[in-house]
Amino acid sequence: MHIVITGGAGFLGQRLLARLLERGELDGQAIRRLTLIDRVEPSVPVSSDPVSADVEIIPLAMDITAPQALDSVLAERPSVIYHLAAVVSSAAEGDLDLGMRVNFDATRALLEGCRHHALAETRLIMASSVAAYGGDLPDILDDMTAMQPQNSYGTQKAMCELLINDYSRRGLVDGRVLRLPTITIRPGRPNAAASSFASSILREPLNGEEAICPVPTDLALFVMSPGRVIEALIHGAEVPRADWVPFRAFMLPGITVTVGEMLETLGEVAGDEAVSRVRHEPDEATTAIVSNWPARFDTAKARRLGFEGDRSFREIIEAFIHERS
Amino acid sequence: MHIVITGGAGFLGQRLLARLLERGELDGQAIRRLTLIDRVEPSVPVSSDPVSADVEIIPLAMDITAPQALDSVLAERPSVIYHLAAVVSSAAEGDLDLGMRVNFDATRALLEGCRHHALAETRLIMASSVAAYGGDLPDILDDMTAMQPQNSYGTQKAMCELLINDYSRRGLVDGRVLRLPTITIRPGRPNAAASSFASSILREPLNGEEAICPVPTDLALFVMSPGRVIEALIHGAEVPRADWVPFRAFMLPGITVTVGEMLETLGEVAGDEAVSRVRHEPDEATTAIVSNWPARFDTAKARRLGFEGDRSFREIIEAFIHERS
Repeated sequence: MHIVITGGAGFLGQRLLARLLERGELDGQAIRRLTLIDRVEPSVPVSSDPVSADVEIIPLAMDITAPQALDSVLAERPSVIYHLAAVVSSAAEGDLDLGMRVNFDATRALLEGCRHHALAETRLIMASSVAAYGGDLPDILDDMTAMQPQNSYGTQKAMCELLINDYSRRGLVDGRVLRLPTITIRPGRPNAAASSFASSILREPLNGEEAICPVPTDLALFVMSPGRVIEALIHGAEVPRADWVPFRAFMLPGITVTVGEMLETLGEVAGDEAVSRVRHEPDEATTAIVSNWPARFDTAKARRLGFEGDRSFREIIEAFIHERS
Repeated sequence: MHIVITGGAGFLGQRLLARLLERGELDGQAIRRLTLIDRVEPSVPVSSDPVSADVEIIPLAMDITAPQALDSVLAERPSVIYHLAAVVSSAAEGDLDLGMRVNFDATRALLEGCRHHALAETRLIMASSVAAYGGDLPDILDDMTAMQPQNSYGTQKAMCELLINDYSRRGLVDGRVLRLPTITIRPGRPNAAASSFASSILREPLNGEEAICPVPTDLALFVMSPGRVIEALIHGAEVPRADWVPFRAFMLPGITVTVGEMLETLGEVAGDEAVSRVRHEPDEATTAIVSNWPARFDTAKARRLGFEGDRSFREIIEAFIHERS
């Protein structure tokens, strides 16, 4: 089996690579080749690494928005394509053309490439986002809640969802879209994303550092751990094609948790000293953005198809501690 | 005021032209110029027609999918653009590339043209469709029901809705999208559209001709008369910009009626003889398509913004008889 990962240098791409190498198979078939694509050449495990001995790993530095960029990769008829490459929300909001080119046009080109190479059986798995929701949302969203995004990133993702669905319905590709909850706890450092605090208020205290909480403690978020997201991407390739109709996009089963509950759980796991490292400095701009994110979902379709969420927020913190060690 | 109508040779375009000329104004401003665009040169009233004496009418034969096609028209800074040009559902299903080019790419180019010419105040009104709905729909749809189209035409319209919304949110244009119910009673002859029967089972008997009803009489439809659709397009330009947020697309207030009720009303208005001209010849293909169309909507947003539907199906038949005479 040949698997392609766009956005292969990113956080999810690298973690998915590691998990696929660890498994060695996907949907019961041995993985023979993994092509990782990103703007910069994705890093790959050293060749002496035993887990990757049987797998040919091909890192490619490529601008996927260039005409026919993916043509030679698609000509190899990959079985599975993980399309994770994207310009993030703040960048897409700051530069409409860039966002349209990377988030929408490159996805359309990928679909056209699959059509051109007659990859009707290729599973194309795209990550979509909670940012594609918006407007006058109900208290609890479900699989039939409208996508009325209030940002360009979400708009572009929602358009891709529609197009992937139509190409799949027409039998041109086997598309599958997973809408990701807010991912926490991300490794690394705080970044410019409005959701950065959702990781840093836990990660920094667990690392003995200070963190700033810019939002009220009663703010609720819909979250999923990195490990569960990766398992969902794996599972997304293994669910039979017929189970995805009529619409091949839905929210993954995150869990709803308030910032207060996150900090309370931090205290239970790591003690009051850890919690005391979080300084509360309300930031109106951040609060305005994240308070519009929906936090409560009935993810019936995802659960019916066997996708699993974290069982508790405590499990999320403990998984982070376990992975870090 | 300068108004542009794409699809100006079509049924709605021609009828909108006539109504605008009859009114002479839109949103309180005198209409000075009307540009009608279509693949074939749209017909216009003869210059001796008194209603159009003060209005410059410019019919243009143009392929709106050609690069920069609309540039010279947009350079004139029109106040209102009615974007009615589209490849219909059967054609879009038969030819994916054609549908994408006309229904999606041309709309995107129109948005880009408005952006390029800084037409932030220009009202861009697009017609969308009940065909953009699909999937596991609830019994009664509302303004937050997801668009999960099961056909390429609906997919392309739903993508345009998202893009128009995003360009409007960014202040690049003043976009407004009206989802149209099934229009009945259309003038003319039966055509290849699956919905053709919704007009012909009334129009032909009223004209003393025979018609075939290919669907069960308990099939429900969500319908609107041509006159009400035109009034909605007019009103769509007059509702203040601020009232359209957060999402600038919604279903117009049609009325729900079964085929049986349509024929019953035909009998009340035109007698049993008219009804006897309808032969029932069930067609599985047509029934399969139209029975998936949603028929019951809570159109709260449209009503709040002052859009009006027909008061009864009798009114729809009587309006047709009145207009024909």
